[in-house]
Parts: sequence; structure tokens; C-alpha cells
Amino acid sequence: MQGITLFQYSLIYNAFSFTLAAMAATTLFLWISRSDVAAPYRTAVTISGLVTAIAAYHYWRIFNSWEAAYDVRNGVVAATGYAFNDAYRYVDWLLTVPLLLVELVLVMRLDPADARSKSLTLGFAAALMIVLGYPGEVAADIPTRALWGTLSAIPFVYIVWQLFSGLGASIERQPGAVKGLVKQARLLTFASWGFYPIVYMAPYVHLSGADATTTIQLGYTIADLIAKAVVGLLVFNIAVRKSQLEAA
Amino acid sequence: MQGITLFQYSLIYNAFSFTLAAMAATTLFLWISRSDVAAPYRTAVTISGLVTAIAAYHYWRIFNSWEAAYDVRNGVVAATGYAFNDAYRYVDWLLTVPLLLVELVLVMRLDPADARSKSLTLGFAAALMIVLGYPGEVAADIPTRALWGTLSAIPFVYIVWQLFSGLGASIERQPGAVKGLVKQARLLTFASWGFYPIVYMAPYVHLSGADATTTIQLGYTIADLIAKAVVGLLVFNIAVRKSQLEAA
Repeated sequence: MQGITLFQYSLIYNAFSFTLAAMAATTLFLWISRSDVAAPYRTAVTISGLVTAIAAYHYWRIFNSWEAAYDVRNGVVAATGYAFNDAYRYVDWLLTVPLLLVELVLVMRLDPADARSKSLTLGFAAALMIVLGYPGEVAADIPTRALWGTLSAIPFVYIVWQLFSGLGASIERQPGAVKGLVKQARLLTFASWGFYPIVYMAPYVHLSGADATTTIQLGYTIADLIAKAVVGLLVFNIAVRKSQLEAA
Repeated sequence: MQGITLFQYSLIYNAFSFTLAAMAATTLFLWISRSDVAAPYRTAVTISGLVTAIAAYHYWRIFNSWEAAYDVRNGVVAATGYAFNDAYRYVDWLLTVPLLLVELVLVMRLDPADARSKSLTLGFAAALMIVLGYPGEVAADIPTRALWGTLSAIPFVYIVWQLFSGLGASIERQPGAVKGLVKQARLLTFASWGFYPIVYMAPYVHLSGADATTTIQLGYTIADLIAKAVVGLLVFNIAVRKSQLEAA
């Protein structure tokens, strides 16, 4: 990366550290509070914490990789020659994106066979989406990037369709007091996930260089915070309210 | 290792980091969820988490050793002269492979005397298999490798025979609702373990160099993920279902 300014370098550096702290804090909150929800919702809360724990690990690696990629001395940013390893994001998503869908399915408490089949098909579609996106992310030319990006969009569209049609019917059957929260969780998931393909397509419009890197890294980071930490806390909230309703 | 490409180096690097994250996440899930199964199955779940915890530790060491073995700068991979320490794998297996058999035996809940004797004999056979394999792994010539490999195959065949004959009768006595899951766990154990000797025999057919290293490292990593994390989650599933059946 040539020409990255000290301001851009520091902004990303501090955003990575912030996200590491936020993901780790969310994990600890979820796991410590796990026993406060009724037994049927505990696995959903455990998995929500697992997603933020895995993200915390990867932000720690991403932070270290960013630090190793530049030497910042006397206010001057110089590339060290060690590449910033962006693959950590794909490795993270491969684990966390299927789990995110599983936590949404589990907190809805469908009947066990339905929950299992929806977790499996949605989880598999999510993993496929990540795997198909990666060859495009590392491709040198736009046509290859566009080909894999388009292939990756097929499972993405399937997941969105499932969230709004297949799971939609189940959401309508949720108790009135939590229906709004479940819809909010679904909307946040959809909106934050929708951000990733926009970032992915940045090179299509010839965005490149330090400005693009800054936009992409901050964009992925904000999307990760919403999709993992905020959605995880929403899932916890749904679990708390459903536990109260069922105890009453 | 001469001539390893940047792609091969990165693939293995990211696979090691992925596996470290997956093993640690599985451990946390199993230990946090331990209280969700009935008391007689908790030791099986604890040990399943122990296996993935030990593997997470070793993948952290393996990752660091891989990173130290190469200097990757400006897209060029150069060997540093520090050897990649593959012995971590054998040290890991010496601990985890006997424990894997113990978790399978424990989740079946045989009568205590039977469980103890099967855990001891299978655990001992597994440790012997690893110990006998190691001198061949580090041997410089093929005949020495073949000799120790063949010796190591004796306890392996005994374990397979036990899994399908000795434990086979006990599996038939498992409740109908979990019999399929137990057989799946046995099959995954057998199939993933069967991969290790194939990798071990790679030098017999004069496979060597960077392509062989990449295949071997990815192969062992995938086999470890299946044998430890996937089988551990299956054992947890069996424990949950048996707890539900016995509570009903």
C-alpha cells in the first residue's frame, strides 16, 4: 500500500483495537449472563458468545498483522514489506457466519427437527457463500472477481429468501412481545451482511490505493460489529424476554 | 523446504490459524454447555473439550513454528533456517488419541467395569500406535519408515477391530434414537484416522518437496478437525439426546 497517511493508519489501527475490545467484552457479557435465561435458550446465547469470541481472536490477529505491515516512526508511515493478511477475515467468516444463522434459528425455538434442518441448510449456504467469495477477493483482475462474486451471491440470495420467507412464517408465530425484536435481529443481519458485497465490489468502480483500503477496512469492521456484537446482544435480549414470558 | 510458493505458504498459514480458532471455539462450547447434559455424560463432554483444548494449544505452537520457518517479505517466501517442528503433531496425538477413544466409550455409558477396561485397553493401544509411528516419521530411509509404520499398524488394526466388534455389540444395545449418531461417530473416527497412515506413506511413493508438504499439512489438519472437533460435537449431541431420553 503506497501513500497511506498517518491519520488513515492510526484510524484503522485504533478501530481494530476497539473492535477486539468490543468483541471480547460482548463474549464475556454473554457467557456470564448465560445462566440468566431459561434452559431452552442457553445454546443460542452460548453460540452468540462463540461468534464474538472467534471474532475477537481474529481481530487480535488482524491488529498484529496491521502493526507488522507498517513502521511508524517520527510521524512517517513506511511499509515494512510484510503483507497485511486480509485472509483472516474470510477464515473468521467461514466459522462465524454459519454460527450467526444458527443462533438466530435457535433463539426462535422451532421444533427440534425443523431447527436442525434449518441450521444445517442455512449454515451450509453461508459457508458456501464465503468459500465462493474468496477466489474473487484475491483475484488480480476484475472479470475473475466478478465471476466468483456472482457465484457467491447465489447462496446469499438463498439465505435472504429463507430469512424472509422460510423463517418469516416462524417469526410471525413468535410471541407478540418479542416479534419486533426478532424482526430487528433479522433486519440488522440482512443490512450488515448487505454491506460486505458493496465493499467487495469496490474494485469494480476502480477504487484503489490508500483511500480504498481505509474505506474497506473500516467498512468491514463496522459491519462485523453490527452483525456479531449488536445482533448477539439482541439475541440475548430475545432470550431474556422469552424466558420471562414462559415463566409467567 | 525449497520452492514453496506464496500461495502454498499462505494456505497452510491460514489453515493453521483457522484450526486453532475452531479447536478453541469447540472447547469453549463443550465446556460451557457441559451442564446442559445429565450427570453421567458430563465426563465424556469434559474430555471431548479437553481433546480440542490440547489440539488448540498444539495448533498455536504449530502456527508459530510455521511462521518462524519462513520470512515472507514483498511477496517472496524465504526459508529462515529454523525448522518447522512437526513433532508437535505426535506429542498432540499421544495425548489426544487415547482420550478420543475414552470419550467414545464414556458417552456409550457401559457398565463401569466394562467402561474402565475398554478405556484402558483402547487408550493403551492408541498410545502404542503413536509411539511406534514416530521413529518411522523421522527416519531418513524408506525401509526404516516402513518397519515402524507396519509395527504401528498392529495396534491400529486392534483398535478398528474393537470399534467394530467389541464396541459393536454395545452400540447395538444403545437406544434407537442415538444408535445412528453413535455409528456416525465411530465411522467418522475410523475414516479420519484412516487418513493419517495414507499421509504417513506419502514418502513410499517418492512424494516430496513443497507440493508434498502442502498436501501433508492440509491433510493432517482436515483429519484433526474431523477427528477432534466434529467427533467432539457429535459426542455432545449423543449426550444431549441420551439425557433427554432418560429424563422422559
